[in-house]
Amino acid sequence: MIQELADFEKMSDGPRLTLEDLARDGGFDDQGPSSPVFQSFVLELTERAVETTAASKETSTSSTIASSGDLSTRTKLIGYAIFFYSYSTWRGRSLFLEDIYVKPEYRGHGHGEVLFKAVVEHARENGCARFDFHVLGWNPAKKFYARMGAENLTATEQWEFFRLTRDKMDRLCEG
Amino acid sequence: MIQELADFEKMSDGPRLTLEDLARDGGFDDQGPSSPVFQSFVLELTERAVETTAASKETSTSSTIASSGDLSTRTKLIGYAIFFYSYSTWRGRSLFLEDIYVKPEYRGHGHGEVLFKAVVEHARENGCARFDFHVLGWNPAKKFYARMGAENLTATEQWEFFRLTRDKMDRLCEG
Repeated sequence: MIQELADFEKMSDGPRLTLEDLARDGGFDDQGPSSPVFQSFVLELTERAVETTAASKETSTSSTIASSGDLSTRTKLIGYAIFFYSYSTWRGRSLFLEDIYVKPEYRGHGHGEVLFKAVVEHARENGCARFDFHVLGWNPAKKFYARMGAENLTATEQWEFFRLTRDKMDRLCEG
Repeated sequence: MIQELADFEKMSDGPRLTLEDLARDGGFDDQGPSSPVFQSFVLELTERAVETTAASKETSTSSTIASSGDLSTRTKLIGYAIFFYSYSTWRGRSLFLEDIYVKPEYRGHGHGEVLFKAVVEHARENGCARFDFHVLGWNPAKKFYARMGAENLTATEQWEFFRLTRDKMDRLCEG
């Protein structure tokens, strides 16, 4: 799904990590660092029979949040979120949402909101003062984030996002 | 100096953390988490006598990087940098530079470059694939960052910076 998100972002050749890298860094194996460097939630769709008041049975779907490692084989994986803690010298511990993704065929049913709120709730429970993330300017999901209450700090305060890639880091230090 | 940087950014009432918060979160006391949630470098200016080839003595200044906790009382503190590790699902472990600051009266002498390169070098030594930070659009230091090799991803790729403040987080989760 990381690759699907990259395809959506029109940067298909972006992802360079292997499953082994992700397993190690997410704390899913025994060789990794003592504490995982990122955390994740996956979004599962569970088919279940619901007893209605009319005493008939019908099949409904509901999305549930599972902490990673908690995957049931009987449910369908339809989305994920990856995040890590950051730190603000103004406010203290914060959460940075790196990726959030719902498979295209499952959009428009509020699943993304369930997932997004679960991560926000996790941030609150862990004492985070802020919840930050980056969004591509052309991404229609900007409307969704605005609805969630997020402010576009690039638009309102002119905060711009800078990056040194590894080759530039090398050049700066070796050259 | 955090307050000075906030003043420069025209957001003087931004910082809300106390020295105790910073000491705890930076791992400078015994009550904090087992590993610090951020790391910092301070920039010290050391006055020293330098033996020149002409056999005369003159006083020169040089800026040196000290890891936090390593402060000598005989040197002058003229800047700081605060950063933490982030995680990219494309590239793995990265470094996020939260603050970098050199006192105004010491600018224009390359001290900022010494400090910036020290943090980049630290990122390389710790296997970081990327070095990210935010800059205000009107900040003249953008030219400095460009000289260091940094790319403005807001300008080139339209990445915009979004934030949910704590009150918005509460509102979203509490209904």
